[in-house]
This record gives sequence, structure tokens and C-alpha cells, in this order.
Amino acid sequence: MKILAGNSNRPLAEAIAAYLKMPLVSADVRRFSDNEIFVEIHENVRGEDVFVIQSTSYPANDHVMELLITIDALKRASARRITAVIPYFGYARQDRKPGPRTPITAKLVANLITVAGADRVLTMDLHAGQIQGFFDIPTDNLFAMPVLVKDVKQNFDINDLVVVSPDVGGVVRARAHAKRIGDDGLPLAIIDKRRERANVSEVMHIIGEVEGKACILVDDIVDTAGTLCNAADALMKAGATSVSAYVAHGVLSGKALERIENSAIESVVVTDSIKATEAIRACNKIRYISMAPLIGEAMKRISEESSVSVLFH
Amino acid sequence: MKILAGNSNRPLAEAIAAYLKMPLVSADVRRFSDNEIFVEIHENVRGEDVFVIQSTSYPANDHVMELLITIDALKRASARRITAVIPYFGYARQDRKPGPRTPITAKLVANLITVAGADRVLTMDLHAGQIQGFFDIPTDNLFAMPVLVKDVKQNFDINDLVVVSPDVGGVVRARAHAKRIGDDGLPLAIIDKRRERANVSEVMHIIGEVEGKACILVDDIVDTAGTLCNAADALMKAGATSVSAYVAHGVLSGKALERIENSAIESVVVTDSIKATEAIRACNKIRYISMAPLIGEAMKRISEESSVSVLFH
Ligand SMILES: Nc1ncnc2c1ncn2[C@@H]1O[C@H](COP(=O)(O)O)[C@@H](O)[C@H]1O
Ligand SMILES: Nc1ncnc2c1ncn2[C@@H]1O[C@H](COP(=O)(O)O)[C@@H](O)[C@H]1O
Repeated sequence: MKILAGNSNRPLAEAIAAYLKMPLVSADVRRFSDNEIFVEIHENVRGEDVFVIQSTSYPANDHVMELLITIDALKRASARRITAVIPYFGYARQDRKPGPRTPITAKLVANLITVAGADRVLTMDLHAGQIQGFFDIPTDNLFAMPVLVKDVKQNFDINDLVVVSPDVGGVVRARAHAKRIGDDGLPLAIIDKRRERANVSEVMHIIGEVEGKACILVDDIVDTAGTLCNAADALMKAGATSVSAYVAHGVLSGKALERIENSAIESVVVTDSIKATEAIRACNKIRYISMAPLIGEAMKRISEESSVSVLFH
Repeated sequence: MKILAGNSNRPLAEAIAAYLKMPLVSADVRRFSDNEIFVEIHENVRGEDVFVIQSTSYPANDHVMELLITIDALKRASARRITAVIPYFGYARQDRKPGPRTPITAKLVANLITVAGADRVLTMDLHAGQIQGFFDIPTDNLFAMPVLVKDVKQNFDINDLVVVSPDVGGVVRARAHAKRIGDDGLPLAIIDKRRERANVSEVMHIIGEVEGKACILVDDIVDTAGTLCNAADALMKAGATSVSAYVAHGVLSGKALERIENSAIESVVVTDSIKATEAIRACNKIRYISMAPLIGEAMKRISEESSVSVLFH
């Protein structure tokens, strides 16, 4: 087993390597003067079981191309098996046609990864589980939930807690979290946004009991944070005592930080599937939980070719 | 026949459309907040013979991904045939392994274009003709040479002219240009760079007669312009009366403009395979010749399914 880090998230790759007590393969990902990527691997990988760690987060195109070029180099260097470890799978929200004459870019990227030469893929909290079916190679999709749930238990009094889905699309995910906290599980609430007429702003209907409760918003991606912050404000207005969020992937683009700073939300907990920028690190409402042990353990099990069914429920 | 323009070189796409007296298909290539690309085609393309014009020039990764996503959208919109028109094919210089454990990115990109759904490819002055063999779909590789040669004839007294290859790798190309100018063709000279020992700067040997002659340097790509400007200086030192360059693709990255401004080179003529930046347009030593008629004509012939053998010698 050998581990190689792309440039998108070296801190995570280093944490995984430390967890597995293995060094990262020495490799260079450089740029030519015209910004074309050049990859060079400095260590023999012939016959090896190689894992490339690369989230295809911002800037997605660069990180996708870097992943593909690295896989190409590994394939030509006769690696025995190449596993693309993509904790955050970019373009996942383009997993179906939102209109006529539009692409399905998540499927395209799945094909690109396969044609480049990956033998299998390891992801985490894919935006839609269906994306696994876009691949003809084996995939494993890890869930941050158990680790996040542990953190909720450590930081909140579970007696006055309610888990909230910020939209109807996320109810299954929120329910899975709620079920795992406390002996009988936590109650669940759902925010049902409705636009009554065009050009009229959305109305937030809260389904379930939140008054006098601490709310835990659960989602898979926090991008511009609009949904999350609006949900938090609606929950506070409905009498919640506090609102915190647990989200697998912290994309945090556009006005996300500003929104989070100015909203009623108390804290946003995300995983390290995407590397934090300086600006994000300076925002003390956002906290990171490392998935290095979860991902490292999965990589070890895949490498040992043992059953991974316990891990990937 | 329908023509669609990517974002990398809209002026060229518009010039081709004007040459063919056809409108460009209305389409949007937008970015989400996290910079992921989204493509939407606003016009029915079902059953159509569609040409997508997109040079994969700087920033290559964005322009490659944009091309792939557009092809995916066209394929899903039931276009009958999709031709990727890639006047400048980026990553072409990574067409072989420069060392162990390195990628062959030109081949990777060829595979990506194919897997995205392109049915054929139209390029111009591929860095190496062999790259056509990287594709399993039909390719046509146009040559700017006839157009460039015409310009040389119009602007120079061919009686005291010599065509110069800036390195031994470019001799075949330079010879092809030389043969086409004047009744008996022009004489040829070659610059043979040699590094006598490591850490000693290169020595320029000029093979052929340049004293008292106007020199036409010929190359396929001018990137940082180091090779070209050093060649020009060496030629002037050897007694040339002037040096101009004709180059198919103006990448012009890094210190290229500065070098050209400060060198003995009189003018650099490039094609519009790559869109000129503001800074390049401000440099009056650089002149552009449009390939819109050449490319437009080839597209028309491909669409008419007629023999293109005359054009693509
Ligand atoms: N990178 C992105 N940023 C924001 N929205 C996106 C992105 N990619 C896709 N979408 C849109 O998000 C919606 C899908 O999100 P969802 O309904 O949560 O699966 C579709 O309307 C997409 O057009
Ligand atoms: N984008 C690029 N910019 C500069 N050099 C490159 C680029 N891509 C590849 N190369 C290098 O250019 C050389 C190939 O150029 P050539 O010998 O002219 O075919 C190889 O050493 C490559 O590593």
C-alpha cells in the first residue's frame, strides 16, 4: 500500500498518512509557465496498491485534471491498483438534468476518472448515493455521521435537542442522525420552504416542535450558507433556544462566511474533506472535525482486501 | 450544421460563424458560486451536426473541462454528430514521457474528449502529428502554413530571405515553409543549441548562411519566447539584417511580451488559434492573422461529408 497526496487537501492526506503510520509517496505536481499541470512521481510504484487522495473541491477543474493526470502517471508507472480517494466529490450536485440540453457532469467526471485508469473510488457523503451507480468500477461511500453524532453527544445536553433538516430533500439524512442520538433517538423537525407565488420571497414552514429546544441542523454540503442561515433564523423566530449545524462538506463559497457571522447560528461543524482557507480558519463559528481516522481505516481495509461491509453500512 | 462557441476564444468562433454566414448556437456557460461550470444550450440540436469551437489554451484545465461538459450536454441533447474544433490543442507538449513515472497528458486529454462523446476532432498545427494517433475517432489537423507563407510573400522581398528553424526539432516544419516561397524555394538555416557542459550556458551554432539576409524564424508554438528571442539575437550577431517570426500558436506566457519587446526580433506573426489578451494587443511587435477562413472551410467540408483530402495534405 502506498499513499499519494494531490494538492487539493494536503493536510488531510498528511493526517491520513499519520493515522496509517505511513509516509506519503514523494511526488511533484508542478505548473509550466502557461499553467499546464505536470506530475512526476519520485518513487517506484510498480506492482503497488496505490491510493491517491484528492478532493475535487475549489477550483474543481484544476483538482479534477490534477487527479486524472496523477492517475495517468501511476498507471504508466505500472501501479497494480489505483484507488481514487475523493473525500469531497466535486460536481456531485450536477447529478441529473435540471433542464433540457444540460449536462450530467457528475456522470461525466465519473467516466473521466475511470478512463484515466482508476480501479476503484473511495468517497465520503456523496451528495446523492446514486452517483455510485455512475461508476462501472467499485466504489465505497463513507459516512461522516457516526463521527459527527459523537461530537453532538459530547457538546449538547441531549434532553432538549431536536435534529432539523433544512429542507425536505435532507430528511432521510437528518433522520439517520436523530435516530443515533440518545436511547430512543432525538425528535426530528423539517423546514418546508414554499414560494407561494413567483417573485414573492419564500415562506419557511417548520414541521415539528422546536420551541424551547436546541436545534441541530444537519446537511451534506454547506456552500453559500444561505439555506442554513435562513433556516437558523426561522428556527430562532419559532422559539428555538439555539441553532448549530453539522455538515459533511464545507464548500463555503461566495458570501458564506459573512452570512454565518451575521446569522443566529451558533456554530457550524464541518469535516476536513475540504481544506479550510485562511479566511475560514479566522471564523470562530466554524469548527473542523477530521475524517482522517475514518478514511484511513477504510483505505487500510480496502488494501487488506478484507470485507468492508461493517464499515460501509 | 450548427456551431457552438466555448469561452476560450469567442472572437475566433464569431469570425468562423461570420465566414460561414451562420449564427452561433445560443448557449450559456456559467459558473456556480463555487466556480463549478454549468452549461445550458438554449436551442434544439436534436439530430444536428454540431461543431464546438474551443481552444484548450490558458487556463487549460478550465477550457478542457468546459469543452467536455459542453460535449456531454450536446450528446444528451441528441446531437447527431459532435465535432470538437480545437484550434490550439493544450497539453500537446506532454505527448511522451520525459522521464519515468510521468504522465502522457496529451493522450489522457484525447481519451477524455472521446469519452465525453466527441465523434471527431478538428485541430490546427498539432505540436506533434502523432497526437492524431492518440484518438480512436477521426481527426483532421489543419496547417496554418499556407496562410502564413502568403503573408511572408506579401511583406518581404524574397530575394534576400532565409527561413530559420529555431532548433533542430523544427527543421521539417521550417523546410516546408521554405519550399513554398519563391520559384525554387528559400534557403534554410538551423540553430543548433548545445550545452557543452552542465551549468554552462548554451552555445548557439548556426547551420547555414544568414549574413546579410532577412531571417524568417518558423515555429509551431511561441510560449515564453525564450527560444525565439535567443535565436533572433544569435542571428543578428551572425550578421542577419532583420529577424521576424511566424508561429502557429501564440501561447505567450510568463515573460514572453517583455522578452519580445526587448529582443532584436522585428515582428512575431501568430494566428488567432489563441485569443489575444489586452497586454498582447498592446504589444505592437505582435501581429495576428485569422484562421477563421481556413477552419470555417474545413468545417464546411466536414459537414458536407465531402473529401477533405485536398485541404488536409
Ligand atoms: N456547484 C453548484 N453550486 C450550486 N448549485 C449547484 C451546483 N451544481 C449544481 N447545482 C444545482 O443544484 C441543484 C441540485 O441540488 P440538489 O437538489 O440539492 O441535488 C440543481 O438545480 C443544480 O443545478
Ligand atoms: N505546457 C508546457 N510548457 C512548457 N514545457 C512543456 C509544457 N508541456 C510539456 N513541456 C515540456 O516540453 C518538452 C517537449 O517539448 P518538445 O520537445 O518541443 O516536444 C518536454 O520536456 C515537456 O516536459
